[in-house]
Amino acid sequence: MPKRVARITSDIAHSTRETITVRGLDLPNEILGHLNLGDLAFLQLTGRRPTPQESAVFNAIVITLVEHGLTPSAIAARMTYIGAPEALQAAVAAGLCGLGTVFVGSMEGAARMLEAALTDRPEPVDLEALARQTVADYRARRTIIPGLGHPVHKPIDPRTPRLFQIAAENGLSGRYVALMQVIEKEAEAASGKQLPINATGAIGAICCELALPSHIVRGIGVMARAIGLVGHILEESQNPIAFEIWQRAEEEIGEGFAAG
Amino acid sequence: MPKRVARITSDIAHSTRETITVRGLDLPNEILGHLNLGDLAFLQLTGRRPTPQESAVFNAIVITLVEHGLTPSAIAARMTYIGAPEALQAAVAAGLCGLGTVFVGSMEGAARMLEAALTDRPEPVDLEALARQTVADYRARRTIIPGLGHPVHKPIDPRTPRLFQIAAENGLSGRYVALMQVIEKEAEAASGKQLPINATGAIGAICCELALPSHIVRGIGVMARAIGLVGHILEESQNPIAFEIWQRAEEEIGEGFAAG
Amino acid sequence: MPKRVARITSDIAHSTRETITVRGLDLPNEILGHLNLGDLAFLQLTGRRPTPQESAVFNAIVITLVEHGLTPSAIAARMTYIGAPEALQAAVAAGLCGLGTVFVGSMEGAARMLEAALTDRPEPVDLEALARQTVADYRARRTIIPGLGHPVHKPIDPRTPRLFQIAAENGLSGRYVALMQVIEKEAEAASGKQLPINATGAIGAICCELALPSHIVRGIGVMARAIGLVGHILEESQNPIAFEIWQRAEEEIGEGFAAG
Amino acid sequence: MPKRVARITSDIAHSTRETITVRGLDLPNEILGHLNLGDLAFLQLTGRRPTPQESAVFNAIVITLVEHGLTPSAIAARMTYIGAPEALQAAVAAGLCGLGTVFVGSMEGAARMLEAALTDRPEPVDLEALARQTVADYRARRTIIPGLGHPVHKPIDPRTPRLFQIAAENGLSGRYVALMQVIEKEAEAASGKQLPINATGAIGAICCELALPSHIVRGIGVMARAIGLVGHILEESQNPIAFEIWQRAEEEIGEGFAAG
Repeated sequence: MPKRVARITSDIAHSTRETITVRGLDLPNEILGHLNLGDLAFLQLTGRRPTPQESAVFNAIVITLVEHGLTPSAIAARMTYIGAPEALQAAVAAGLCGLGTVFVGSMEGAARMLEAALTDRPEPVDLEALARQTVADYRARRTIIPGLGHPVHKPIDPRTPRLFQIAAENGLSGRYVALMQVIEKEAEAASGKQLPINATGAIGAICCELALPSHIVRGIGVMARAIGLVGHILEESQNPIAFEIWQRAEEEIGEGFAAG
Repeated sequence: MPKRVARITSDIAHSTRETITVRGLDLPNEILGHLNLGDLAFLQLTGRRPTPQESAVFNAIVITLVEHGLTPSAIAARMTYIGAPEALQAAVAAGLCGLGTVFVGSMEGAARMLEAALTDRPEPVDLEALARQTVADYRARRTIIPGLGHPVHKPIDPRTPRLFQIAAENGLSGRYVALMQVIEKEAEAASGKQLPINATGAIGAICCELALPSHIVRGIGVMARAIGLVGHILEESQNPIAFEIWQRAEEEIGEGFAAG
Repeated sequence: MPKRVARITSDIAHSTRETITVRGLDLPNEILGHLNLGDLAFLQLTGRRPTPQESAVFNAIVITLVEHGLTPSAIAARMTYIGAPEALQAAVAAGLCGLGTVFVGSMEGAARMLEAALTDRPEPVDLEALARQTVADYRARRTIIPGLGHPVHKPIDPRTPRLFQIAAENGLSGRYVALMQVIEKEAEAASGKQLPINATGAIGAICCELALPSHIVRGIGVMARAIGLVGHILEESQNPIAFEIWQRAEEEIGEGFAAG
Repeated sequence: MPKRVARITSDIAHSTRETITVRGLDLPNEILGHLNLGDLAFLQLTGRRPTPQESAVFNAIVITLVEHGLTPSAIAARMTYIGAPEALQAAVAAGLCGLGTVFVGSMEGAARMLEAALTDRPEPVDLEALARQTVADYRARRTIIPGLGHPVHKPIDPRTPRLFQIAAENGLSGRYVALMQVIEKEAEAASGKQLPINATGAIGAICCELALPSHIVRGIGVMARAIGLVGHILEESQNPIAFEIWQRAEEEIGEGFAAG
């Protein structure tokens, strides 16, 4: 049970009659025209402007998560939109509700795994030993190692090398990325299967490099997908497909029923 | 009732084993490292990369909508988070659900008003006459003109002149912005009140300049607020206030009940 | 803008260390074992226990709305569940988000239409004249009359006569139901088409008989559908179909893309 | 990854031009006027009508969960409603999103604990030994035993004895309820604290008696709360308090900011 507090506070934003301040910066004069949307998201999460290097890397990881086609999340948003076209926000909300453990959770899981292994651990760290231990722990618990493998993108997820390249070019490929890469090798050796780091594994590792706490990592995927879902809703309004998907499913079930 | 279609299609994204394409661009090689998050949102909505001018203006309008303090939307997200901290995505979804007619709807309303007045209208247009007519129509229907006035930011909303400046500097201050400005003057003359264009009015007009259809304009606010809400949830995890707000409300009601 | 209040109050529920009171009734001793779920919903909305007649009618209208097969709402809930099976509440929430103007809105529209026509109107009322006027008004505005016609259930919606029968048997078929029935006749005469009262029209009229305000009528459908969606989620966990619906849609789109 | 299926099926509902069938029963003729809302929910979850005894018990447990005052869930729904009063369904959805591990999760946890301990275990079962083992396991993992203790209702939750009484009177107080009661005693003995079975513990146990699978138990709370939230939204429309709660919070934060 949380504790009672005498005064509630928030450091995010503040308005007066003449001013609007976000994270200590004057919105009209210090933010608008000076930051891009990814930078503002970084500011919102960390309380400070990104460096140019952080801006490049953070924009890249959020962008990676915006769009991945006609996902269950996009279908949910489109189904919602055809019932309540006047409430576009509810369609986006419906689409976000499913961003749980199955799809975006592996990103959070990867960050959590790396954070637990490395954060607060003094140098020098034997990454190979740490990776071996981590892989052994997951295998002992019969748990999938988060951030490895992909049902479609084989043998490599094309996003991963590019994200790692961008991180490296901007000086943000440190020991979290390195540990993730050794975990991949150890997991492949232990299982005898191809288990390439997928985009969520790469992003989880890079979020650690950016010092984002693992419990907010899922939020990167959520904000990204909100952008993607608005695009799907716009397309649904111009090229409707949800009605057709619905009708086909209902007919198939109805026939099964009639026959049953 | 929509029509059945023989084949469902979508032009947003496409994956093969080796490639991921978003709006016709190769995600790893043509998007990551080349576009910022606002640009990607523009791409997602329009199907093409923004020009540098469009990028500057579009990033600015989305950023403006990310954060406005402890709004009802932020309170809803925080209340949701304390009940389901394991489902961050549901907390963001809950916060988005209230972005309806009262708060972000005026942005859509302003765009709709300007779109109806100007789109497909051949030049030359007498903006003064059009504004007079528009104001008279809304007053006759006893409907508030969307995008004018603000309960706190008086006599001007500090975001508005800055947004119009950025639009002008980038060659995107055309007849929609001009019409909005004349409507402000006409509305003030007709009502005898100060009715400055607020941020939602400015953004509605600029969305029209960017040729975004009015029925998707609310979506700009929704994607922006998703970013803001992730920030509120992170802060709630570090500096909890929802529990205190809840307890105070419940105690006050309980006392009222006991006395009643 | 709402007004500030010195004290916030709520009359719905109240707890002390030893007691829990809902709408003035002691939950353990006066409600549990004495009311059914529909009665409790009636209590929650009206502040009083239903009479046996109201109980019969109210239970029937809510039940009617629980389930109508694999609707877009059910598909959205199932799609959400496969992404976040640990957050069942979010799957129900996603399914509810689409209960807007297109599907359940007609129930609210019918109640609003009847409420506007009859509430506060002194007897005697010439229902034929009122119906003629109402139909003429909707036709002049080129607006569909809510609660009439159904794409599948023709020439009659089988729920409608049964609901009207239950209302009549319980003394709750008054002038709202009568007006709805005359409107059906007038609309058919004016349009030359079969426009039978559908379930939402019948329920809208009966909600008026129960003196439920029209702006809460949609809520009857929302609470009902929440029950239905839990059933769909349970079935999805036992007989998964969302994955298959998703895969087929994605494949069809991918092929279209490859060819395009 | 789920498997592909050749044909999607659903056994929940089915419509033809003239009929609507829910779980094999004709909706107009076999359900409407014959079942109450709780019975229909039972039918929806189990595929069969409840016996009179099951009806009494199931209605009681769902009713217990409908309303518990101005919870975070109710505040989230009210905050959403003031932003989007035209989308009542989205306000209910927002309120449901927070029904996660913290509040309703203990119900699911209790059912899961009892199900794991007892289901498929042949008679005779030594309940004392089983309870001792269960309590020891939770204590070893430093995990709270679900369904025990309450911050307000001390030393007993008034709903618990009443729910167990209703279950017993209807022949549905079997070994799951008995095990829960022995776990209470063992937990109190092991911890030296008062840890009375709370309503969620009682309901979790009774859900097991009704043979509802534990992974759907949270859904009972979700459907119940949907009803409660519609009541809160109606009251908010008649006696607004969300605006006041919001304004106070924002002012307090603003003052903190100005001072900071």
